[in-house]
Amino acid sequence: MEKGVLIILSGFSGAGKDTVIKKLMSKYDNYALSISATTRAPRVGETEGVSYFYKTVEEFEQMIKEDKLYEYAQFVGNYYGTPKDYVNEQLELGKDVILEIELQGARIVKEKNPEVVTIFVTPPDAKSLKERLIGRGTEDMATINARLRRATEEAQYMDEYDYLLINDDLDICVEELHTLIKSQHFSVNRNIKKINHIREGVKAFSEGE
Amino acid sequence: MEKGVLIILSGFSGAGKDTVIKKLMSKYDNYALSISATTRAPRVGETEGVSYFYKTVEEFEQMIKEDKLYEYAQFVGNYYGTPKDYVNEQLELGKDVILEIELQGARIVKEKNPEVVTIFVTPPDAKSLKERLIGRGTEDMATINARLRRATEEAQYMDEYDYLLINDDLDICVEELHTLIKSQHFSVNRNIKKINHIREGVKAFSEGE
Repeated sequence: MEKGVLIILSGFSGAGKDTVIKKLMSKYDNYALSISATTRAPRVGETEGVSYFYKTVEEFEQMIKEDKLYEYAQFVGNYYGTPKDYVNEQLELGKDVILEIELQGARIVKEKNPEVVTIFVTPPDAKSLKERLIGRGTEDMATINARLRRATEEAQYMDEYDYLLINDDLDICVEELHTLIKSQHFSVNRNIKKINHIREGVKAFSEGE
Repeated sequence: MEKGVLIILSGFSGAGKDTVIKKLMSKYDNYALSISATTRAPRVGETEGVSYFYKTVEEFEQMIKEDKLYEYAQFVGNYYGTPKDYVNEQLELGKDVILEIELQGARIVKEKNPEVVTIFVTPPDAKSLKERLIGRGTEDMATINARLRRATEEAQYMDEYDYLLINDDLDICVEELHTLIKSQHFSVNRNIKKINHIREGVKAFSEGE
């Protein structure tokens, strides 16, 4: 069983990451989505082990101490993090695992795991980004402006990612993401076992002559 | 017009590179194959500007002096090399250009052009590699053995490439190669212009508030 690829997907708020991931996962069965751990209380309609792994502060800090998280952060008084166990289980099962995390987390994970593939999703231009932020119609102007300021900051660091994906047409974006992830399986670093096997085989034949 | 991707395709003799490239180019129109320059005489059936660019020794050495070759080498008393002009014209036209060259040339080109994508094509295992070498039925045992020794040497350096492609089923291999090359267009390094455009746009909106 070939191990899966670990993928980080980041992007502007309003870039449509959630929709892209949902469609990708409904269309192909080789993906798993990382499930975060959090100390915040479950909300109505959320399910343990699906929405989040719910932890007490003590449990969460124990996970930190035991290095059981790929990354974690505090937000509005709660811990959020990416448990390693679930991700690694899925990778071992051959699933390509998607981590939907932002720049800070992406940096931490990439630094410790250089083989992780990082992808930044963006609308085609700033105009459509703003339209999408406003178009939701669910947020007030202060929230939208805060998001725009955050987008300005995120835009500064887009080039730290490995790949840039333009989400203009949803179906095209999903296909491009799928293609991009599939092609990661061909990287030489993921095929060292195969390479060594061929090396030994060729050498044995040469010596057998 | 987005610039094309420069690809180096290497692989064991008998890996089926020529067949893969031929099929890829007949199926998709976004590819161009680099044409080598040589000082050897044209053979019957070969065409200037299709098979090779035929050069005198003086002309070839002038190209070397003027840095007009991506790489060159001498083989059985003749020069062979990759003219930059043709490749660059095709890249500017948006074509993904394939250079079918071996390890030494690949190293030289990659060193000077780190953005080039290097791919090594191999049969699935050493057994099928040997079968393919013998299976041609056109070479004597001495030639086959020389090729096997060369393959042993090449196998040592497979891991210098970016990607490993297994040629087991021709159609699958062609599709995988196409997918792999397409996905290279998403690399952040190839999209700096787009990134800067988005950056400026987002910044302008933020400042306009």
